[in-house]
Amino acid sequence: MSSKRLVIVGGVAGGASAAARARRLCEQCEIIVFERGPHVSFANCGLPYFVGGEIVAQDSLLLQTPETLRARFNLDVRVNTEVVAIDRAAQVVKVRELATGREYDQPYDSLVLSTGAAPLRPPILGIDRPGHFTVRNIPDVERIMAWIKDCKACRAVVVGGGYIGLEMTEQLKHRGLGVTVVEALPQVMAPLDPEMAAWLHAELKANGVTLHLGDSVAAFEAPQPGESARASVVVLKSGRRIEADTVVLGLGVRPETSLAKNAGLELGALGGIRANDAMQTSDPEIYAVGDAVEVRDRVTGAWGIIPLAGPANRQGRIAADNIFGRPSRYESTQGTAILRLFNLTAGCTGANEKSLRKAGIPFQALHLHPGSHAGYYPGAEPIAMKILFAPDTGRLLGAQAVGHDGVDKRIDVFATAIKGDMTMQDLAELELAYAPPFGSAKDAVNMAGMAAQNVLAGDVQLAQWNEVASIDPLQTVLLDVRRADERAKGHIPGSIHIPLDEIRARMNELPRDREIIVHCQSGQRSYFACRILSQHGFRVRNLTGSFRTWKTATTPIAP
Amino acid sequence: MSSKRLVIVGGVAGGASAAARARRLCEQCEIIVFERGPHVSFANCGLPYFVGGEIVAQDSLLLQTPETLRARFNLDVRVNTEVVAIDRAAQVVKVRELATGREYDQPYDSLVLSTGAAPLRPPILGIDRPGHFTVRNIPDVERIMAWIKDCKACRAVVVGGGYIGLEMTEQLKHRGLGVTVVEALPQVMAPLDPEMAAWLHAELKANGVTLHLGDSVAAFEAPQPGESARASVVVLKSGRRIEADTVVLGLGVRPETSLAKNAGLELGALGGIRANDAMQTSDPEIYAVGDAVEVRDRVTGAWGIIPLAGPANRQGRIAADNIFGRPSRYESTQGTAILRLFNLTAGCTGANEKSLRKAGIPFQALHLHPGSHAGYYPGAEPIAMKILFAPDTGRLLGAQAVGHDGVDKRIDVFATAIKGDMTMQDLAELELAYAPPFGSAKDAVNMAGMAAQNVLAGDVQLAQWNEVASIDPLQTVLLDVRRADERAKGHIPGSIHIPLDEIRARMNELPRDREIIVHCQSGQRSYFACRILSQHGFRVRNLTGSFRTWKTATTPIAP
Repeated sequence: MSSKRLVIVGGVAGGASAAARARRLCEQCEIIVFERGPHVSFANCGLPYFVGGEIVAQDSLLLQTPETLRARFNLDVRVNTEVVAIDRAAQVVKVRELATGREYDQPYDSLVLSTGAAPLRPPILGIDRPGHFTVRNIPDVERIMAWIKDCKACRAVVVGGGYIGLEMTEQLKHRGLGVTVVEALPQVMAPLDPEMAAWLHAELKANGVTLHLGDSVAAFEAPQPGESARASVVVLKSGRRIEADTVVLGLGVRPETSLAKNAGLELGALGGIRANDAMQTSDPEIYAVGDAVEVRDRVTGAWGIIPLAGPANRQGRIAADNIFGRPSRYESTQGTAILRLFNLTAGCTGANEKSLRKAGIPFQALHLHPGSHAGYYPGAEPIAMKILFAPDTGRLLGAQAVGHDGVDKRIDVFATAIKGDMTMQDLAELELAYAPPFGSAKDAVNMAGMAAQNVLAGDVQLAQWNEVASIDPLQTVLLDVRRADERAKGHIPGSIHIPLDEIRARMNELPRDREIIVHCQSGQRSYFACRILSQHGFRVRNLTGSFRTWKTATTPIAP
Repeated sequence: MSSKRLVIVGGVAGGASAAARARRLCEQCEIIVFERGPHVSFANCGLPYFVGGEIVAQDSLLLQTPETLRARFNLDVRVNTEVVAIDRAAQVVKVRELATGREYDQPYDSLVLSTGAAPLRPPILGIDRPGHFTVRNIPDVERIMAWIKDCKACRAVVVGGGYIGLEMTEQLKHRGLGVTVVEALPQVMAPLDPEMAAWLHAELKANGVTLHLGDSVAAFEAPQPGESARASVVVLKSGRRIEADTVVLGLGVRPETSLAKNAGLELGALGGIRANDAMQTSDPEIYAVGDAVEVRDRVTGAWGIIPLAGPANRQGRIAADNIFGRPSRYESTQGTAILRLFNLTAGCTGANEKSLRKAGIPFQALHLHPGSHAGYYPGAEPIAMKILFAPDTGRLLGAQAVGHDGVDKRIDVFATAIKGDMTMQDLAELELAYAPPFGSAKDAVNMAGMAAQNVLAGDVQLAQWNEVASIDPLQTVLLDVRRADERAKGHIPGSIHIPLDEIRARMNELPRDREIIVHCQSGQRSYFACRILSQHGFRVRNLTGSFRTWKTATTPIAP
């Protein structure tokens, strides 16, 4: 082992982790890292915040340099150097120095591919016009910053409402640009279900961002007479024309697999490199990690391409472990992710309703709006939560949360629970940290667990926000049990109103021949009402998430 | 069941939870709640913040009133009414109305005791002098606020450095009082191990609080000539005399069990009511919940008295479930707790080193200081963490954390992991939410998991901060691998210095005949050094937590 030669292609995230871990396991080995770009181990998740000025010094994005990696880990890091081919039979990679064009062969005993993913640039007419940018690396953001440097009242169009698109939207607004977001789907942030993404739509609107959902780019054109645009006029499929002084393309990424493909390594059906749980490709001497590989979804078991920094780093460590004879396995990815968008935070972990439907996995969806901490302590704000669980076993399948405070904490608790195969019963019993500034005696997560227990025990049945639109009044009555002052601020059309505390006295006003769907503001008081009514023989369901979920999900977002 | 009569003694936390849950399970039952005090369901955890003015309206501490509980849950709540005895044979409680002295019998089918715990008032001379207060209920804090209302430059002495004592310390400082804390133990906040509590000592000092550790009150005296004190002169065992305009007694609590004891119900060895996992006492028709009962410690299995709001509320729900025929079990308490102290947050969950030693459970202690979020994004600060895990299986046994940001989140993740019987391997693999403002690609919890994996795999052995004082230089060398500028700010006496990045070149300066204990600032770079040196045949251990833990733990706190 002492003479082993390890070659790593790609010096960011997974590649850098593999290299550093390899050195800790083998002090004498030769470890060579090739990186096509000028930087290794940079903070790609920080790029939007550098554009927006929250991260001021570019140096702080450089977690390591070739020099620091040599000094600390005795790594031979070669930047601006591309690996152009793999000769598997000879165990050699073909290398090209980008500055000089010089090519040479580099032998390896083990090879790690950490080639990452490249931003998608679909063949839209005019996509390569000047002033159009993707956000993958430091040169990308340097170009953006140079382009918008002297821009007064500049207008940006962000194409794609995913993580990068929304983070760039926030940061460009911080810099004073006008921003329009164009998203082909009817919602931003696809890992959220639509009623949860609706909170982000409202937040974008509240912050002056123009939002075009369900529309996509037909072409990028030069401005016509009467139009002004430093970059392009963005022409949408709907016919709308948007003048853009700069265009940010956030259309997602595709795994960079040409090296693997040309070497005859097995790819998955989704186009990523296929690796086993030791991160080993179809060639046992070649490992692959990070955004270029396909992974198993922890909840659905489906193969997916889930580009995330955490898994990439762990896979790098695991590849190095296996190369040096240590059994170490990468289990699966659960897709935990988080986004700050102006004053909101949105996060998710595990499966969403869309992915469960696709996989044919039965689920129960629960909405609730618990406080971020004890209501009697200042600053508590509701967190909108959607929880998905197995209707038979109560196993937690996925969680989504949007709010102003405490979202990251609850997502991390749910993520830990999914990793531990925990049930809603377990969540009800969790003993979480409570002091007034931090939580509640019954934390938001406990509340989710208890609400699910009530469903699992058959104490209450749920109705979903999207059933409301198709209610047949001959079959179903919608009952609002909020206070009069709450109802005065808005109500669901067609609902009747009896405040919770009057239910026992006014039960005779309710029909016994129809189902009653009860709602309040968040779903807790209506659950109480359901318990009263069902014990008196009424047929009831609780509108989960109640008025708050229904209102947010159904409010139209005009551009 | 429809005619069942449920009587609950105590209308706060567990009692209120039991009553509300009972009504949801049985609409027709009679539910009577007796409360000795004037308030039910008040936020006792909020009391210090009401004193300090963070919570302004007293109403916000009243989560429910007898009127709201009647309207919503059809509860018969009788405040200022004491249950003075239980006649188990007759299934009757003897009740006294405190205002009128009227006594009557109240029959029950099922009885729930939620009698709570009372502040300890040890028989110290002068303890009942005016201006001395405990902090249990709203009348208590009203009295405190009346006493200090017109106080200019008032001096408070807080006796006891537990949760209530420290929260009151913070809040009295906020109100401009000078505060002295007297604690008999050599540390505040006993659930933390001493080196973790040391962060709180420094924070108290930095905020101008005077701290007397390892000293206790001998007497409270009237001021002598030349002394001035609106309340007492607090005389310590050490002989020190402290002038106090008010005294807050935070000496802990004892379970209120006289009712149970007089009724012949079984008590535990620690003096709490003994209940089974259905919260049923030795009388099957009598249940007991909350601070008055003994619970099993989840990690050590030992019986304990662990007064916490979360468990009390859950136990109330569980008692109601069982009374109405639903199997529902209270498993154990893991002691998750959190404290904000000025700019610091300190939290813990599971066992600490003290409790593991007492229970004879083998453990490995790990210290680390990971960032609260990605270091390249502004505002990241280290979190001091202590993790205890089983040296054979890697099972997580306990966690403690102190820091400025993100402590509550990590404690909740650790608490969830303990509930899920998870291992350090699981923590390394956790997929937590990462975006620059919230976390890191390798989150603080992942770092703990990976550091433990290295120990479990035998890649590194750890030395503890308290071994440093007894190092024999003939046997052991202490090696500092920090940068020169870090060392210039302070170092461990007797240590030699070779920066990490020079280790490979200067290895010949190190002895091969002695053990080398390596440290850096937090323990990560010294781990790297250990890997280099051990692969070159040196005998090494890593000083876990390194300089940061050693320095904080060994800095003397002069009063």
